[in-house]
Amino acid sequence: MKLIRWGEAGKEKTGVIINDVKYDTSAFGGDYNEEFFEDNGLQRLEEFVKANEGALIEVPAGARLGSPVARPSKIVCIGLNYADHARETNAQIPAEPIIFMKSTTSLAGPNDAIIIPKNSVKTDWEVELAVIIGKKASYVDEADALDYVAGYALHNDVSEREFQLEKGGTWDKGKGCDTFAPMGPFLATPDELGDINNLRLWLTVNGKTMQDGSTSNFIFTVAHVVSYLSQYMTLLPGDVISTGTPAGVGLGFNPPVYLKEGDVVELGIEGLGSAKQELKAYVKQ
Amino acid sequence: MKLIRWGEAGKEKTGVIINDVKYDTSAFGGDYNEEFFEDNGLQRLEEFVKANEGALIEVPAGARLGSPVARPSKIVCIGLNYADHARETNAQIPAEPIIFMKSTTSLAGPNDAIIIPKNSVKTDWEVELAVIIGKKASYVDEADALDYVAGYALHNDVSEREFQLEKGGTWDKGKGCDTFAPMGPFLATPDELGDINNLRLWLTVNGKTMQDGSTSNFIFTVAHVVSYLSQYMTLLPGDVISTGTPAGVGLGFNPPVYLKEGDVVELGIEGLGSAKQELKAYVKQ
Repeated sequence: MKLIRWGEAGKEKTGVIINDVKYDTSAFGGDYNEEFFEDNGLQRLEEFVKANEGALIEVPAGARLGSPVARPSKIVCIGLNYADHARETNAQIPAEPIIFMKSTTSLAGPNDAIIIPKNSVKTDWEVELAVIIGKKASYVDEADALDYVAGYALHNDVSEREFQLEKGGTWDKGKGCDTFAPMGPFLATPDELGDINNLRLWLTVNGKTMQDGSTSNFIFTVAHVVSYLSQYMTLLPGDVISTGTPAGVGLGFNPPVYLKEGDVVELGIEGLGSAKQELKAYVKQ
Repeated sequence: MKLIRWGEAGKEKTGVIINDVKYDTSAFGGDYNEEFFEDNGLQRLEEFVKANEGALIEVPAGARLGSPVARPSKIVCIGLNYADHARETNAQIPAEPIIFMKSTTSLAGPNDAIIIPKNSVKTDWEVELAVIIGKKASYVDEADALDYVAGYALHNDVSEREFQLEKGGTWDKGKGCDTFAPMGPFLATPDELGDINNLRLWLTVNGKTMQDGSTSNFIFTVAHVVSYLSQYMTLLPGDVISTGTPAGVGLGFNPPVYLKEGDVVELGIEGLGSAKQELKAYVKQ
């Protein structure tokens, strides 16, 4: 299945994509949130869709897409999980997964504008495979870890490098600004994808290819990451884990290249669709 | 006002404390969560309590207390915010606030057991003043920052030092284990407290005083911290900011002293009550 959320930001309705057509499933009730995943929502949704085959209403053309999952309890990210990206940022290959967190208020729709924060001059991109947790995971063995995954989505782990690296403390300071986690277009259940540790992922800025990698270059696989994280915190249904980015981020250029107002970022992952984000300057609301 | 949540973990009911007596306010409806604070809940609750004066039912004696706030969108912490604590951990005085995040799944009641994580040998304590946000805060000026505060609570920012400092990456790895954020006993609105930048706070282990400090030793005041954080992420109603710990943590001893099964931690802040936590070993459930 491919799940979407669509409509006005903060008031998204649920939907599914079948044969490239978006259908409204708001009659199913609820949202794609912790409760949904915890309460066997994926299976119930599949039955609902089957039972209503032919009767589902299409999502209005041009409707905005939101994040395919509602605000989770946490967005945990893995840093430097591709050897080529570790090299470009002059970092050592980590001996075990590096973790940091994005504020969940950074979650946005896949084609929403990215707002360059006030006083930011180093806003950067990172195409990433995001994992959505399907059931509560605590001290999970690597062999069982994929049983805890509900699905996958495309994620741009937008990062402000000055905030992240030059202001003291942890990376979290440069990762959680509003709009810094555009997610989607859709959540795909694992059966929709091939080998998740062998997916091509790419990102362009103003049409120029900046990242073109493969999850086959993961230092730590999805199963390893889920298991590892679950040793340090309990993962809840609907939680998002972002698995790191391949080489080609702005920080890695010499001199570095950062995003400015009007730039357009496009990104995609094999089997997980593509997204397009325009950069806008912060305007006081 | 002093707000409490009480009853079975995960099914807490709401309450208030008046003249040291705990009253059930579940008839008010809802929980002390984002929606409550956003929707002027504190004022509405005050009116409800006045309207029901004399008719409120006492909370059953011996009832468990939960965190006085429901699971927030985030728990953001300030690192090394007391000069004496920075010194004891051989860290420099930070030029601007250090921030990190605790997984919200670590939230616990003030007197719940602290579970020593699997494979942990360095579980440590940190008495802290927690700030609960009352309304959405983004790019807030320091002069206005306290207007965005709903109240304050006692918090033990339990930390696993090996996970935090010796496993690569950010501090988040050692801060978010289950039960690592015992909060309460109650949330006090600002009018209940004196100068929040001049409160005594203390912590004992097995009756021996380990921390005895004052928020007058803050490097960065509450107003500064709220304003600063709001430049990097949007704070939502109900969000928790923990403001750092004074000297006297286990890591600061030579050799370091860590918590073990059966230890009892007691802690308190002037005007915010006290809490008592027993250390238990992790047992597979």
